[in-house]
Amino acid sequence: MFTKTPKPPYYTVIFTSKRTALDDGYTELNDELYAEAQKLEGYYGAETLRDANGYGVAVLYWRNLEDIQQWAKYQKHIRAKQLGKEKWYEGWKVRIAKVEREYGSD
Amino acid sequence: MFTKTPKPPYYTVIFTSKRTALDDGYTELNDELYAEAQKLEGYYGAETLRDANGYGVAVLYWRNLEDIQQWAKYQKHIRAKQLGKEKWYEGWKVRIAKVEREYGSD
Repeated sequence: MFTKTPKPPYYTVIFTSKRTALDDGYTELNDELYAEAQKLEGYYGAETLRDANGYGVAVLYWRNLEDIQQWAKYQKHIRAKQLGKEKWYEGWKVRIAKVEREYGSD
Repeated sequence: MFTKTPKPPYYTVIFTSKRTALDDGYTELNDELYAEAQKLEGYYGAETLRDANGYGVAVLYWRNLEDIQQWAKYQKHIRAKQLGKEKWYEGWKVRIAKVEREYGSD
């Protein structure tokens, strides 16, 4: 925080989730995935927070829908999503949105 | 969490911020504002998290841009934004985005 993003329009993926108590590889794979996303040209960064009760929000910023789709097909990401459904998340939601306007103190 | 939202399209406001150490009325006014937003027809709810270092993400969901503009003109909200700039936030950013797609475990 704060992620540097270009002038809109660009895209955001809002991932809200409730974690189970189980780690079992979660932290390692999660860290790897964010590190690998950094290498992609269309990825601008993310803001991620999780509270003590396991509720989390991750807001990822992307150049366009094609970049998001490419990330969705990334093998390690697919594997993470499977494991997430099986054991890491009690609940989750993904929202894909087009950023139209941005302003702030920076 | 998780906020119930209708089928897209609808809008989201992503507010990222870094708090100062000062409360001085922040918690009270912040709570009041979220409670009053709940009474507005075009407001669907919010997901808000802040970490121990003062970094926060609030994701608010709205029916359309007109509802967001109306909230921007709400007197208590205008006052809160002024106070926020003066003493509550070291930095902040607002992004307004149109949610095009949504899916999840619910």
